Amino acid sequence: MANLWEFTLRTGEQGCYNITQSVKDAIKESGVESGIAVVFCPHTTAGITITENHDPDVCEDVLLGFDRAFPDTPDFKHTQGNSFAHLRSSAMGCSVTIIVDEGWPLLGVWQAIYFCEFDGPRTREYYVKVLGDQMQVPFDDDDLDEEETAGLEEEPLA
Amino acid sequence: MANLWEFTLRTGEQGCYNITQSVKDAIKESGVESGIAVVFCPHTTAGITITENHDPDVCEDVLLGFDRAFPDTPDFKHTQGNSFAHLRSSAMGCSVTIIVDEGWPLLGVWQAIYFCEFDGPRTREYYVKVLGDQMQVPFDDDDLDEEETAGLEEEPLA
Amino acid sequence: MANLWEFTLRTGEQGCYNITQSVKDAIKESGVESGIAVVFCPHTTAGITITENHDPDVCEDVLLGFDRAFPDTPDFKHTQGNSFAHLRSSAMGCSVTIIVDEGWPLLGVWQAIYFCEFDGPRTREYYVKVLGDQMQVPFDDDDLDEEETAGLEEEPLA
Repeated sequence: MANLWEFTLRTGEQGCYNITQSVKDAIKESGVESGIAVVFCPHTTAGITITENHDPDVCEDVLLGFDRAFPDTPDFKHTQGNSFAHLRSSAMGCSVTIIVDEGWPLLGVWQAIYFCEFDGPRTREYYVKVLGDQMQVPFDDDDLDEEETAGLEEEPLA
Repeated sequence: MANLWEFTLRTGEQGCYNITQSVKDAIKESGVESGIAVVFCPHTTAGITITENHDPDVCEDVLLGFDRAFPDTPDFKHTQGNSFAHLRSSAMGCSVTIIVDEGWPLLGVWQAIYFCEFDGPRTREYYVKVLGDQMQVPFDDDDLDEEETAGLEEEPLA
Repeated sequence: MANLWEFTLRTGEQGCYNITQSVKDAIKESGVESGIAVVFCPHTTAGITITENHDPDVCEDVLLGFDRAFPDTPDFKHTQGNSFAHLRSSAMGCSVTIIVDEGWPLLGVWQAIYFCEFDGPRTREYYVKVLGDQMQVPFDDDDLDEEETAGLEEEPLA
């Protein structure tokens, strides 16, 4: 059980897509009460960010700010003409890591997780991986002897 | 035992606050010798970054650089007037993930972890979550009885 | 077994170095089939990013974009004269977290992991830490029967 989910998203030309609910769903399905979750975008012209969830103007302003900080310019060498999108993806980052507490993402009240499209429209994927804390009580193992315990110290268990 | 800590910080208008010691404290209290730690800011107008700890001018220069790359402009739509701060938060990111080795954050000699306020003064929170490696040696359990199992649920095993 | 690797890199003045193979090697050596990996740079004038692996012009364009968004300016206070590099390191971030699935980094087909030098030439280090999922089936235990083993594989332990 890898606690790994893949989601698909159909995007417009440019935009921020609130994917928080899908992350909550993945955490719930995982059964993990305490741990972390990694949200990862496998594309190089899109990103993942956390920003305000209340006023949709914030997302538009964030995209406008990225447009201005990282504009398209004629001297980019990449012939596909979308270096500005690669640049914004690299600057924003393609993943976020959040804390899972009591089976829930530990986000601030105004925070949501967004998939940011910089070069759409496209069909996009993103992954959610949920990792629980170290197991606390592994299982009943009345038959475990000393020698086996020592062996475990030398070798990774994976 | 979730190995999760919450810290509170009183910020000024704008600034970088060195929170490395609190992260070290959390790791120490967790008892985790080997794993990772996630430092997470639940606010959308602040960020977390890692930069130089020696010369405080570096932090000021980093903030100045963010001011210039992501300036406040009159055409932002968000009526609260702090889109520049949301933008800087999104660009910097609201968390960092560090490696824990021998019970210590594996940072470079010049690195420190900073909480960056982009829209203060405010009372802020941040979280530190410590995750240990897969359990290597579960525990001596020839004699494990019901009562001891219950005890283990209260304490981290790391 | 900490599943932690250190790599050394000799850089030029500025540039993006594809370090994906070393991350794959670390994951393979760790034996972790399912989990995450953290790639961490312990320097404050370099960064780690994920961007396109096919056309090397993309990396050059990304660096050019960072140059323009975060230029060197005479009013930076830090007397060492490399505040622009600290700034770019902070903006890009000094680590990435990726998902490990079936013993392999879950990257998009066009993605590669890059060490970005903003203030070289220097001898640099970076770390790769691999964390497995919660232990699923901890070890061969002769007394566990087929049916029980199968059950453990199907269900998360969290």
